[in-house]
Amino acid sequence: VTELVRRLRAGDHRALARAISLIEDRPEAAAQLVRDLYREAGRARVIGVTGPPGAGKSTLADRLTASYRAVSRTVGILATDPSSPFTGGALLGDRVRMQDHAGDTGVFIRSMATRGHLGGLARASADAVLVMDATGWDVIILETVGVGQDEVEVVRAADVSLVTLVPGSGDDVQALKAGIMEIADIFVVNKADREGADRLVATIESVLGLAPETADAWRPPVLQTVATEGTGIDTVIASIDRFMERPAARRVARARERAEARVREILDDRFRRRIDEHVLEPGEMAQLVDAVVSRDLDPYTAADRILSRVIEEGA
Amino acid sequence: VTELVRRLRAGDHRALARAISLIEDRPEAAAQLVRDLYREAGRARVIGVTGPPGAGKSTLADRLTASYRAVSRTVGILATDPSSPFTGGALLGDRVRMQDHAGDTGVFIRSMATRGHLGGLARASADAVLVMDATGWDVIILETVGVGQDEVEVVRAADVSLVTLVPGSGDDVQALKAGIMEIADIFVVNKADREGADRLVATIESVLGLAPETADAWRPPVLQTVATEGTGIDTVIASIDRFMERPAARRVARARERAEARVREILDDRFRRRIDEHVLEPGEMAQLVDAVVSRDLDPYTAADRILSRVIEEGA
Repeated sequence: VTELVRRLRAGDHRALARAISLIEDRPEAAAQLVRDLYREAGRARVIGVTGPPGAGKSTLADRLTASYRAVSRTVGILATDPSSPFTGGALLGDRVRMQDHAGDTGVFIRSMATRGHLGGLARASADAVLVMDATGWDVIILETVGVGQDEVEVVRAADVSLVTLVPGSGDDVQALKAGIMEIADIFVVNKADREGADRLVATIESVLGLAPETADAWRPPVLQTVATEGTGIDTVIASIDRFMERPAARRVARARERAEARVREILDDRFRRRIDEHVLEPGEMAQLVDAVVSRDLDPYTAADRILSRVIEEGA
Repeated sequence: VTELVRRLRAGDHRALARAISLIEDRPEAAAQLVRDLYREAGRARVIGVTGPPGAGKSTLADRLTASYRAVSRTVGILATDPSSPFTGGALLGDRVRMQDHAGDTGVFIRSMATRGHLGGLARASADAVLVMDATGWDVIILETVGVGQDEVEVVRAADVSLVTLVPGSGDDVQALKAGIMEIADIFVVNKADREGADRLVATIESVLGLAPETADAWRPPVLQTVATEGTGIDTVIASIDRFMERPAARRVARARERAEARVREILDDRFRRRIDEHVLEPGEMAQLVDAVVSRDLDPYTAADRILSRVIEEGA
C-alpha cells in the first residue's frame, strides 16, 4: 500500500486503476488506503452527475471534462454502473470513452460495478473519490448510470449534484418522483432543443415551488443544455462555481450529512462481512433458508438466531 | 395484534391499512405480525411490476387488476414509492386510483414510502405482502415507481417480475443496463403503438441472447401491450401463468433466493436499529461526524469505534 500511495501521488494512471480494483475487491485494503490518505483529501471538486438512462449524462460529463481541461484542471471520471454482470458493459464503455481523451494524462476514466451486496458500491465509490482527491486530481466527476436509491447513495459523496433530465418522455412528473428532487443542487434539462423542453423546465420549477423554504436558501437552478453540441455547458460550470461559494455554514451542514452517511455505510458493510466471514458456519445459511422456504421457520426468527451471535447483547 | 389479525382475516380494509402503517412505523409489531401469520402465507400470487418512470406501470397494474377481478380473484396493489417526503404524492395517487375501483371490496390499494434508512422499504414491503398473502388476498401486485437497486430489492419479494419498458427514448440499451435484466421474468414493451416498439423488442431480445444458458432454462418473453387500451393484457396474464408452472425445482431455487434475501434484509434492519436505539449515546454520532468533517478522524476509524461496541468480538 505504501508503494501504491507513492505512485498514486505521482499521478500514475496504472496505480490508480490498481487502487480502485483493490477498493472493489478488498475492503480491508480500501480501509487502509483511506486511513493513510484521509488527511490529505478535501481539495478536489467532486461533481455528481445523475439522472434517468438516456438523459445524456456521459456526454455532459465529457463536455464538463473538456471545459475543465481547457483551464488545465485534471479530471477523473468515475462511472458507477450497477449493470448486469453478464453484459460487460462497463469496461467496454470505458474504452470507447477513453479514445476521446487518448494521450491526455490529465484525464482518468474508470467504471465501478456493483459487486456483492447492496451498499457496497456507495462505500467503494466514496473510497475511490477519496483516493483521487487526496492524490491530486482537481475535478472528480461521479457519474451514475441510472437514478434510484442506490444512485442517490453514490452521489452523496459529491460536493455538488447535477440531475440531468430530458424532455419528451411525456411523464416528466413521474421522473421527478424517484427521490431525485432531494439530491439535486442543479437541474440540467439536456437535449433542450427537443420539443417539450420549456414544459419540463416549468414542471421542475413548479415542483421546486412546493418545497418548503429552509435555512439553506439555495434554490436549485434549472439549466438547459444540448450537450452533444456543447450548448449551455459554460452556464453549468458557472452554476457549479456559484454553488461552491455558498456561505460556510451551509457547506459545513452538507459535509456533516455526507460524513454521517459515510460512517453508516462503512458500518453496514462491516456488519455484513462479519456475518459472512466470521459468524455463519458452512452450510448454516442454507439450512436456515430451507426451513424458511418450508415454512417451519419465519424469517424474523431465522435472523434472530444469527443476530444473537453477532451483536453484543450487553451493549 | 391478535384483534388486528382477526379483522385482517375477515378482509377488513381498514385493518389492513392499519397493519401496513404498523409495518412502516413499528418494526417490532411487523415482526410479531409476520411470526403469527407466516405459516398461513404462500397461497397468493405476487406479481412485481417495475420499470423506468413513465413506462405505464400503474396503468398496467390497473389492467391486470381488472382481469383478475373479472375471474373473481381479490387483488391488493402495493405501490412502493421512494418519493420525496415533501411531495405527498403517494397518498394523493392512492386516492385517485381508488376511484376506479370505488365500491369494490375485492380491491385494496396502498402506497408505501421510504421512511428512514435505505433497505427499510424492502423489509417493510415484504412484510406487507406476507400479511396480505396470509389473510386471503389472491393476487398481490407489487409496483415500484422507478427502477434501481432499491426497486430490485423490493421486487425480489414477488413470485414473478414484469419489467415494463417504453419505446422512443432512443436510448433503450442504456435502460437495460440499470440492473433490470436480472430481475425480469417477463418483459412488457408498453405503449407498443409508438414508433420504435419493434426495435426495442429486438434490442431486448438481442441482449437476452447474450445471457448464458443456465439450469433455469426460462427465457423471459418480450411482450407488447398498449395498457391504456387493454391491448395485450391477456397475453401478459398467460405468460404469468406459464411462468408459475415452471418445474418445481426451479420454483424452489427462486424461493430459496428470496428467503435468503429476506433474512439478510431483516438482519440489516435490526443492526441499524440497534445502533440507533441502544449503542449510540446522545450526541455521540454528532461528535464523531464533527471529527470526520474536520479531518481529525477518518470515517473507517469512526465506524470501528461504534462497531466495537455492537459486535460480539468473540463470535
